[in-house]
Amino acid sequence: MATFTLDPQLEADSLPLADLELCTVRLMNDANFPWLLMVPRCDGLAELIDLDRTKQHILMDEIARISSALKSVTGCDKLNVANLGNQVRQLHIHVIARFEGDAAWAGPVWGKLPAKPYEATAAEELIEAIRNALD
Amino acid sequence: MATFTLDPQLEADSLPLADLELCTVRLMNDANFPWLLMVPRCDGLAELIDLDRTKQHILMDEIARISSALKSVTGCDKLNVANLGNQVRQLHIHVIARFEGDAAWAGPVWGKLPAKPYEATAAEELIEAIRNALD
Repeated sequence: MATFTLDPQLEADSLPLADLELCTVRLMNDANFPWLLMVPRCDGLAELIDLDRTKQHILMDEIARISSALKSVTGCDKLNVANLGNQVRQLHIHVIARFEGDAAWAGPVWGKLPAKPYEATAAEELIEAIRNALD
Repeated sequence: MATFTLDPQLEADSLPLADLELCTVRLMNDANFPWLLMVPRCDGLAELIDLDRTKQHILMDEIARISSALKSVTGCDKLNVANLGNQVRQLHIHVIARFEGDAAWAGPVWGKLPAKPYEATAAEELIEAIRNALD
C-alpha cells in the first residue's frame, strides 16, 4: 500500500469506523445525518480518475458494501453518494443516509447546517451497528 | 437491455449527448456549470446498489470515461461526481466540471442558482467537443 496521511480536516470532522482493502471508513461527527466518509488510503489522489481501473472497481465494491450496511442500519429513504472535494482535495467519498423530512431534505447536506456532534454513546452505538452490518 | 423510460424532469432539464453501453449521457441545460447526467438505461433503479456488480463496474468505467472527457474539454479545477436522487428518484449520476470561483464555489451546485439555458450554438459546441473527447 502506498503512503497515506488522512487530511487533518477530514480527521477532525469524523470518527474511525473501519479499514477496508482500499478505503478507510469514518463516521462524520454530525448527528444531523448518518454520514460516512470513505477515503482511499493512497496519498496524492483528488479525483476518482486518479485511481487506476482496478482500484476504481474495488472502490465501487466498497461503496456498495458501505451503502448496503448504512441502508440496513438506518432504514433510510435514499442514499447520497458523492465525491465533491471542493473544500478538501484529498479524494473522499460521502455516503449519506437521507430521510424524507430530514434537516436538509430534499437538498444536499453540505453547508446546510452546522455539524451537531454526537453524544459519545450514540456515536459508539452507530459505529458498532454499522461494523456489525459489514461483517 | 431492460425497458427504459427517461424521467420527464431529467429529460426536460437536459439535452442528449451520447449513449454508452449502460448509460445515456445528457448535458444539463444550465450554462452556469458544464454539467453532465448519466442515466443507466434500466427502469426501476434508484440506488447504485440496485445495479448488479457487473453493471456497477461498467458504470464506474463509464463515469471514468465521462469524467476524463469533461475534464479534458473544460480544463476544470475539480470534478464533482454524485448520485443524490432526493428529488428525482430514477438513478442518475451527476458529473460536473467545477472551477475555483464559479457561481457556487466552493459549495455544491444543486439548488444554488436558477438554471441558465445555453444559447443554442453554445450547447451544440460543448456537446460536440465532449463527443469528440469520448472517441
